[in-house]
Amino acid sequence: MKMENIRTDLALENQEHISESGHDLSGVDVTTEIDDKLDITVTWVSITDETGASAMGKPVGNYVTIESGAMKENDTAAHEEIIKILARKLGKLHNLQPGAVILIVGLGNRYVTPDALGPQVCEKILVTRHIGEDSMPQDLQGRVRAVSALAPGVMGITGIETAEIVKGVADKIKPDIIIAVDALAARRTSRINATIQMSDAGINPGAGLGNKRAAINKATMGVPVIAVGVPTVVDAATLVNDTMERMLDEMAEAAPDEGTFYDMLRGLQDVERYGLIREILDPYDNMFVTPKDVDAVIGRLAGIIASAFNIALHPGITQADVNRYLN
Amino acid sequence: MKMENIRTDLALENQEHISESGHDLSGVDVTTEIDDKLDITVTWVSITDETGASAMGKPVGNYVTIESGAMKENDTAAHEEIIKILARKLGKLHNLQPGAVILIVGLGNRYVTPDALGPQVCEKILVTRHIGEDSMPQDLQGRVRAVSALAPGVMGITGIETAEIVKGVADKIKPDIIIAVDALAARRTSRINATIQMSDAGINPGAGLGNKRAAINKATMGVPVIAVGVPTVVDAATLVNDTMERMLDEMAEAAPDEGTFYDMLRGLQDVERYGLIREILDPYDNMFVTPKDVDAVIGRLAGIIASAFNIALHPGITQADVNRYLN
Amino acid sequence: MKMENIRTDLALENQEHISESGHDLSGVDVTTEIDDKLDITVTWVSITDETGASAMGKPVGNYVTIESGAMKENDTAAHEEIIKILARKLGKLHNLQPGAVILIVGLGNRYVTPDALGPQVCEKILVTRHIGEDSMPQDLQGRVRAVSALAPGVMGITGIETAEIVKGVADKIKPDIIIAVDALAARRTSRINATIQMSDAGINPGAGLGNKRAAINKATMGVPVIAVGVPTVVDAATLVNDTMERMLDEMAEAAPDEGTFYDMLRGLQDVERYGLIREILDPYDNMFVTPKDVDAVIGRLAGIIASAFNIALHPGITQADVNRYLN
Amino acid sequence: MKMENIRTDLALENQEHISESGHDLSGVDVTTEIDDKLDITVTWVSITDETGASAMGKPVGNYVTIESGAMKENDTAAHEEIIKILARKLGKLHNLQPGAVILIVGLGNRYVTPDALGPQVCEKILVTRHIGEDSMPQDLQGRVRAVSALAPGVMGITGIETAEIVKGVADKIKPDIIIAVDALAARRTSRINATIQMSDAGINPGAGLGNKRAAINKATMGVPVIAVGVPTVVDAATLVNDTMERMLDEMAEAAPDEGTFYDMLRGLQDVERYGLIREILDPYDNMFVTPKDVDAVIGRLAGIIASAFNIALHPGITQADVNRYLN
Repeated sequence: MKMENIRTDLALENQEHISESGHDLSGVDVTTEIDDKLDITVTWVSITDETGASAMGKPVGNYVTIESGAMKENDTAAHEEIIKILARKLGKLHNLQPGAVILIVGLGNRYVTPDALGPQVCEKILVTRHIGEDSMPQDLQGRVRAVSALAPGVMGITGIETAEIVKGVADKIKPDIIIAVDALAARRTSRINATIQMSDAGINPGAGLGNKRAAINKATMGVPVIAVGVPTVVDAATLVNDTMERMLDEMAEAAPDEGTFYDMLRGLQDVERYGLIREILDPYDNMFVTPKDVDAVIGRLAGIIASAFNIALHPGITQADVNRYLN
Repeated sequence: MKMENIRTDLALENQEHISESGHDLSGVDVTTEIDDKLDITVTWVSITDETGASAMGKPVGNYVTIESGAMKENDTAAHEEIIKILARKLGKLHNLQPGAVILIVGLGNRYVTPDALGPQVCEKILVTRHIGEDSMPQDLQGRVRAVSALAPGVMGITGIETAEIVKGVADKIKPDIIIAVDALAARRTSRINATIQMSDAGINPGAGLGNKRAAINKATMGVPVIAVGVPTVVDAATLVNDTMERMLDEMAEAAPDEGTFYDMLRGLQDVERYGLIREILDPYDNMFVTPKDVDAVIGRLAGIIASAFNIALHPGITQADVNRYLN
Repeated sequence: MKMENIRTDLALENQEHISESGHDLSGVDVTTEIDDKLDITVTWVSITDETGASAMGKPVGNYVTIESGAMKENDTAAHEEIIKILARKLGKLHNLQPGAVILIVGLGNRYVTPDALGPQVCEKILVTRHIGEDSMPQDLQGRVRAVSALAPGVMGITGIETAEIVKGVADKIKPDIIIAVDALAARRTSRINATIQMSDAGINPGAGLGNKRAAINKATMGVPVIAVGVPTVVDAATLVNDTMERMLDEMAEAAPDEGTFYDMLRGLQDVERYGLIREILDPYDNMFVTPKDVDAVIGRLAGIIASAFNIALHPGITQADVNRYLN
Repeated sequence: MKMENIRTDLALENQEHISESGHDLSGVDVTTEIDDKLDITVTWVSITDETGASAMGKPVGNYVTIESGAMKENDTAAHEEIIKILARKLGKLHNLQPGAVILIVGLGNRYVTPDALGPQVCEKILVTRHIGEDSMPQDLQGRVRAVSALAPGVMGITGIETAEIVKGVADKIKPDIIIAVDALAARRTSRINATIQMSDAGINPGAGLGNKRAAINKATMGVPVIAVGVPTVVDAATLVNDTMERMLDEMAEAAPDEGTFYDMLRGLQDVERYGLIREILDPYDNMFVTPKDVDAVIGRLAGIIASAFNIALHPGITQADVNRYLN
């Protein structure tokens, strides 16, 4: 079964979609941890071979998803736990050496609020690469790695493909690892701003808010690339398609006599219905659904992600330091 | 027929909706001018009595709509014509006296891109109220009125209802007229960023991007209020509802044998289907659909609207002056 | 002795200047507390009558100054102590009732970095006035007062005198107290970004970065106004004048034989030399001296001031809450 | 004579300083054109050999300076003439081939207003490199070159030396020429925001607002680099030094009897007095003098520079197109 008609950057949603359709998940391993008290769910999806990659529409690799409604609210206890989980899982995705040099890249357009996550994360990173040994403040000595952070903008504004900029800079500063932060598209509105995905498969071509990104991964960059993303939008056609499907389910339950017809409607394959929807939706393509209070939420999420990076990358920095540093 | 289930701030769409349903448009007059060459359509909707107001879900008053696909592109010839039309229609909505003092209010949240239209328009206004006679630059003397411009923010950020701020300032500076600029919600995605509505009925309660605005109109402010808006989003539930309706129409044509059923489905009143959709959509309310390149477009629209104001409000300022001034 | 030639908004510097000149400080009381370990100095200057007011060039009232080099650095322990001190002194300047409604006003131009302190403080305030009893999040109930925050912009951009906007809004929302935050000019560069002044005398006419502000104080607003400011610039002419004076002192020590001449030079009264300097400096008036890393420092100072407000105004909020809330 | 004590990025000021001191200008050619009516002065300084380079403290190359008070005001006629002059001189500095690929780099910190010139210029460039032949809008076909624009931020924020980023990107996209825009420091406050310097010698090490830039020039980048800058600040110590010198001159004229002493004072070499001043000025180094209305002026200057680039780089684009495009 193909994934083209379901627009999502979340491996978790690809996997759900396959399961719902009753297909086989060969080549895909899934483990889940749930914290009921704090309402945090962590799912680790491993795509282990090309069969799984083909079914999932994503490359071989590991995809960790942290989900929590607390991300959308000001639940500070949950945030601190999420920061710790993120930092731990980052360490599991990639084993950082003591002297490692890290390049953090904030993808996305800082002038479009739901696409501004990457640049906003960069602004909250404790950047240290340029501070020489002798200039390093006393309270940081021996507690930090060399971290740099860059927000390369978007091709529509610079005229340069983002992957070209990242590769050019990486060739010069030779980081041991690149961590790329991006805004994503999800399938379900419930996932928006309530999910963080981290993956060692890097940034896929075509990911993000319709920017048709060129790939930023180990193959193209020459060093490991960890991709970290939050879905901040749902593609409009996907929203309509999914909502209709759920409506049909509810109507079918309420009117069992019409069973045959609803079966027919639902039998209309996802891809056909999605195609019809795309035709109907105004040719004004790439429309996205996003919540109204997106600015406050993007800022909060950027803070959570940057805190996790600061803790994970700088060995001697704790959550308390992070709290005070970001004030 | 009620309007609650169709989320739109455009009088034009209310009027279309009524006509489509075959209802009577008593108390509503409509005139249309079309410029085929430049692809600009101007519609003047007058709601003349309470019958019309009730049917339309909007107060008595005049609503001018300028529509053109050129707004979304860089078609400069069309932009200059749109600017002239806007300036002319503004004059028809309200007859400005020579010594009039004008307060322009840019409603909306500058930090949320599709809601930033108002503040961005304010930034491009030729503000003159504070310049005394003797300080006025030579090339402006006798060619300008006293214009002020304020962007009051949004209640979620200031803790103060926008209408309270506008009333408080208006009581102090006593303008002869208030022009309020706001981002709107439309019903059809084709209208997004391709439509400008001006109305002498002011800002309705509940208008805008779900902010539940208190009214800013002549009754509440004490002076005439012209409301100028551009739909930059479509409410998600409205999008799903409308798309489904059009899908049903297309499917009915393709499968005439199923006629009875489709009639039943379409018979499911708008309001019931919309209610079902709202239930299904995640309780994450107030979700909006907006296009990806919204930042460039908002800037362009703000320039068009501000240029029209500069020309209409400052008697001696021309389009050429405007072009150079905004550089 | 007149103050016109010494451009400073700091009562502390006015008082120093008078003492240096050997004049009488009648009507001016000064007390000082020093924390050597954290390098924090708190000076309380009370101007008690018109004699003192005339000598100081500032109205009768209380002026608290907190000075610490730690403000310019990332010394988090000192910051936390400064926040506590600020909150305590705010309480001493004004006794807040339990149900008090507070309006915080962030003066200054958000687009000019050294003038952006006020607007940046507003962005970090826990704003609550608009949250009804039933909508108040559980963890805030009973722990907050009704606080609103507004950044009115500057007259050159809005066309409206800031005091007009503040008065207009205050008349509508009827706060019990107004707290106005502004960037100030100091006399000594050592004071820049290392000093916070709070005063119950409100905002003087002519204060701030040369904006010639109209007064925002109890007399004009009708409610008590606490002014809180940080010097972010030194007026250029003041810088030259002061530096020259200190040079003359050093040269006099090094060349005692030239005593008579140096006495003559120094005898050239401040006001004459300052006048000569202003003539020489380019008629490009209102030039200010500011440090290059001003953006990071303004952000840090805004965080310190906003934290102090959040603690002082919301009775149940602690420093730990503040740290987490601002993350 | 050395240049270290006179902090200026303007070749024009170096040359003036040498002339004032009566030194020889061997290896330096100067030609001047004056437009009295529009108050525009164009000076072309050629440093032709190492003698001249050593005296001037700048590398061999051409330095064009356009000076006009009109830049600080809204004198649109003068602006249009300045734009034409800039475009012409750019062509004289470098002969662009029809198919040339251009990379524009906006140096500086977008968050510090006087340092934001580079990033603001980038925002107003007609960027075309990413638009394929078939996607090119009809009205641009055959009228544009491939232009890209990047604002790399500053090392204190990214952790990466700006020159590393520019080199990395240039190695990838292989432009035929790089145009780097930067804010500069001048010696005289009269030059601030009233001067544009263009040079084919690229960006010197140590240029700009105290950022200690690594060199961005043909030697380091591999392709020609045109540097374009506007002085937006004067270094504080330079301001004090220069002002004192002029005061001494005026006092000497007024009191001829003190001749001997003033001669002594003025005999105190620039470098000694400058050193004494730096000692006296607070160790808070890198302080700059900038005018209060800097935000409006930076925007205006960015518009002038970007317009000149758009005209010079895109062969079919005129001033009228530029005016309309930037609206």
